[in-house]
Amino acid sequence: METKQTHLRLKTPLRCIVKLGGAAITSKNEFEKINEENLVTVSLQLRQAMMSSGSSAESVLEMDWSKRPGISDALNKVDDFKEQEQQVLDFNSFVVIHGAGSFGHFQASKSGVHRGGLDRPLVKAGFVATRISVTSLNLEIVRALAREGIPSVAMSPFSCGWSTRDRNIESADVSTVVDALDSGFVPVLHGDAVLDESLGCTILSGDVIISHLAAELKPEFVVFLTDVFGVYDRPPSEPNAVLLREIAVREDGSWSVVNPTFGDTDKQVEISVASHDTTGGMVTKISEAAMIAKLGIDVYIVKAATEHSLAALSGKLREKIPEDWLGTVIRYVS
Amino acid sequence: METKQTHLRLKTPLRCIVKLGGAAITSKNEFEKINEENLVTVSLQLRQAMMSSGSSAESVLEMDWSKRPGISDALNKVDDFKEQEQQVLDFNSFVVIHGAGSFGHFQASKSGVHRGGLDRPLVKAGFVATRISVTSLNLEIVRALAREGIPSVAMSPFSCGWSTRDRNIESADVSTVVDALDSGFVPVLHGDAVLDESLGCTILSGDVIISHLAAELKPEFVVFLTDVFGVYDRPPSEPNAVLLREIAVREDGSWSVVNPTFGDTDKQVEISVASHDTTGGMVTKISEAAMIAKLGIDVYIVKAATEHSLAALSGKLREKIPEDWLGTVIRYVS
Repeated sequence: METKQTHLRLKTPLRCIVKLGGAAITSKNEFEKINEENLVTVSLQLRQAMMSSGSSAESVLEMDWSKRPGISDALNKVDDFKEQEQQVLDFNSFVVIHGAGSFGHFQASKSGVHRGGLDRPLVKAGFVATRISVTSLNLEIVRALAREGIPSVAMSPFSCGWSTRDRNIESADVSTVVDALDSGFVPVLHGDAVLDESLGCTILSGDVIISHLAAELKPEFVVFLTDVFGVYDRPPSEPNAVLLREIAVREDGSWSVVNPTFGDTDKQVEISVASHDTTGGMVTKISEAAMIAKLGIDVYIVKAATEHSLAALSGKLREKIPEDWLGTVIRYVS
Repeated sequence: METKQTHLRLKTPLRCIVKLGGAAITSKNEFEKINEENLVTVSLQLRQAMMSSGSSAESVLEMDWSKRPGISDALNKVDDFKEQEQQVLDFNSFVVIHGAGSFGHFQASKSGVHRGGLDRPLVKAGFVATRISVTSLNLEIVRALAREGIPSVAMSPFSCGWSTRDRNIESADVSTVVDALDSGFVPVLHGDAVLDESLGCTILSGDVIISHLAAELKPEFVVFLTDVFGVYDRPPSEPNAVLLREIAVREDGSWSVVNPTFGDTDKQVEISVASHDTTGGMVTKISEAAMIAKLGIDVYIVKAATEHSLAALSGKLREKIPEDWLGTVIRYVS
């Protein structure tokens, strides 16, 4: 695997890699529709989590100065900064990765981009259409973060030169992500259509990107924001579904539920995968999370835009998980 | 200069690098306003120029399958492809680079991104705001090209790891552009805010990107699409302005006007630079164009969305320039 190692030492340790799940930030059943309410709350919580304890949280210095429907003063945002010129932005460093939700999945699955075959016009067009859709979502997420004063910068994996071979990451120039972090920015990546050296092209899921970045950048913890309270023992829509509060990962990568305790240990979790989810669903998520946990990095899977997600993002769960916290923690046990 | 040379040999020679000038595709005096009419015509002309002579030009296979205001059938675009599955898309390979026009310039100049200093909140915010603005333009250009059936893919220079030192290109991973070309895509780059190793950050102009890519990728020719008929001997708004039809570039990089002939050779061209143009105006363009021409690559500067731009893009001017062609050609003379 060709991973350029030139500048991989971060100036400041990375605090957190956070995944904004597609289901949490988009209306998954409505084509190309952002869940604006969730996105605003998620951005606010990210801001709160990123602010160092000593920073002033009073005034938000917006960083999206674009024209907006109904807002005439975008051009004046710049004046806020002149008044605040002395204030130094002091952020815990985060990397944000988002899924596609109702963006991109339609285009990808209709054309079969994940199966490759760029010599077919349908696949090539689907590649173009998928990237247009996911990068339009990416732009809106970067905007939402910037409006909360988070110095977010889009880093589209295909543009960054990420590529795969048989769907496994073959090349990923993490140094551009490191350079952005070292310069005080918050890189925003996403699941993307990428070139694949054997298939021609495929879909690189956000979860696989997280796993790769976690191994390279060693964040203190990883948070998956989703649309349910965590991982359940069966589809969460079923009446008897039980939230798995803690999953332990062993040296060999296998995992088991340690809280709640079941008579039957190593219980296989039932999963539901929406038919248009071309990158797999909960199985991918748990196995990727287990790979991250194996590195000694705690992983929290939690419902977006709740007090529980704020608790996870703040990092305070690393000391002690309160009884009333709802979510799934996946941890390494030696 | 760290330019990764891994895969720099293109499978197929590059036909053309084309610059969509900011003034040609945006309304330069209205904040963040695209010149839709020009953009549609430019996209159509690019499609015509890219089609190989043997290809069928009858049916346009749209590659933007996103939701659009007023259009309900975006989801059905995919069916066009199923009917056309046998048709192989056969394109002359192009790279597209666009300027910022009324996108990004305001944000960049208000914050002084081009002067660097990322430790200042205003500059950091301006960097974020500039990228949001230019990438939103980039997305719309990629969409416009895709709607004409051009397999366009966004490649934002900052994301691609392009960086500078004292405003000169320090690192540019052209291999990702090569990989995209080799896979049959049309990379779409743009002037961007980038990291600068000595200043912290700066603006990398589209013209500098073209110059760098031309040297690396050796296209058959380069076209600059602008909002006037070419390069004039004085601001083109002045009544006696004379269009310079041919500029000859010598071995040492100096240049002179050979058509029309002036009594006074090596006449200095008067230039006008709009005050919000942070990347320089005609002087930058001519000197960058002269550097390209010195490589033996003909450069055409021509008014976008005219018969003259179509003639330039088609490549037929390389054999003979008709008397009635309006534009400026910049050529190497030994």
